[in-house]
Amino acid sequence: MADTARARPARYTLEDLLDVVVHEFNTRGYDATSMEDLARATGLTKSSIYHHVTGKEELLRLAVSRACDALFAVLDEPGSVDGYASDRLEHVLRRSVDVLAAELPYVTLLLRVRGNTAAERWALGRRKEFDAALTELVRLAMEEGDVRVDLDPALITRLVFGMVNSVAEWFKPRGRNPVQEVADTLVVLAFDGMHRR
Amino acid sequence: MADTARARPARYTLEDLLDVVVHEFNTRGYDATSMEDLARATGLTKSSIYHHVTGKEELLRLAVSRACDALFAVLDEPGSVDGYASDRLEHVLRRSVDVLAAELPYVTLLLRVRGNTAAERWALGRRKEFDAALTELVRLAMEEGDVRVDLDPALITRLVFGMVNSVAEWFKPRGRNPVQEVADTLVVLAFDGMHRR
Repeated sequence: MADTARARPARYTLEDLLDVVVHEFNTRGYDATSMEDLARATGLTKSSIYHHVTGKEELLRLAVSRACDALFAVLDEPGSVDGYASDRLEHVLRRSVDVLAAELPYVTLLLRVRGNTAAERWALGRRKEFDAALTELVRLAMEEGDVRVDLDPALITRLVFGMVNSVAEWFKPRGRNPVQEVADTLVVLAFDGMHRR
Repeated sequence: MADTARARPARYTLEDLLDVVVHEFNTRGYDATSMEDLARATGLTKSSIYHHVTGKEELLRLAVSRACDALFAVLDEPGSVDGYASDRLEHVLRRSVDVLAAELPYVTLLLRVRGNTAAERWALGRRKEFDAALTELVRLAMEEGDVRVDLDPALITRLVFGMVNSVAEWFKPRGRNPVQEVADTLVVLAFDGMHRR
């Protein structure tokens, strides 16, 4: 029991199972994690795991789907749809940080997929779609006159959302900087930069 | 031979070996790469590899050292040492992007280490030192009045250098955005943000 001290429910739901699996994938890397490792970490037999899913790749797909669904849901929120593009962009930035913090292990896993399997390539495709939607928003904000037009909108998007994604590398739910402060600082930097005026 | 079409030199130097090894680590993940995988990828026998190094972990350490050394060298350049802190910060930002592009696979590997082995923990420690030096520079730029003082300097550093690090995820040496454009855009965003003024 010693190294499986993470709360192990008496009866596993698929969601409980995924929580443990994602922790293993993030610690060890997806490729290096075997079904044996997952059985050990969950305290289940391999056949109990196969009762829930067809295998390791389906677990990955379920996990990255959860992260993708949460991120795409942000794009459908009223704040992402109504109003000026730069306000919508700010909304998406803030809410992406929220989702990242709320679904930290799942988003971390999504950001680390490499593309070695079909599930990973599917996730990379979804990330591309998300990037394309954001680039479109930046382009629109340029047209509306709120974003400087001397920079490549796709490059702005990559860098600004690279800043969002980098939060997954160090964010701690009860750490020094609460999620609200991270989102506020990120929005200030993205729109106004660190220069004192 | 089919999947080892990467140029394989007639005689391996340690540097040639590292290039192939780092490619394998990045593709498969360090934990999932075995000495057998490395033998296959390099076309060497395991004992020839052991002629160069004591094992997989030493290869990792050599590879991440190369990235760390290149990044730390930036901190000693005249542009990082002389003048106002905000100019020094800009210099470090630009040159970090240069190093990232020049040593792309090595920096990518450095950014992906997890801390499962002594070599990885050593690399994480070096990254922390680098971050601390940058935070100090941001703090100094605040004192000199060039950087806004309403934000946490450590958080600014993490976000801005998170933006730098994110470049490793997508940068292609002959891609759409040349390294100079990436560095220029990054500096504009970090200091002035994307708002049109």
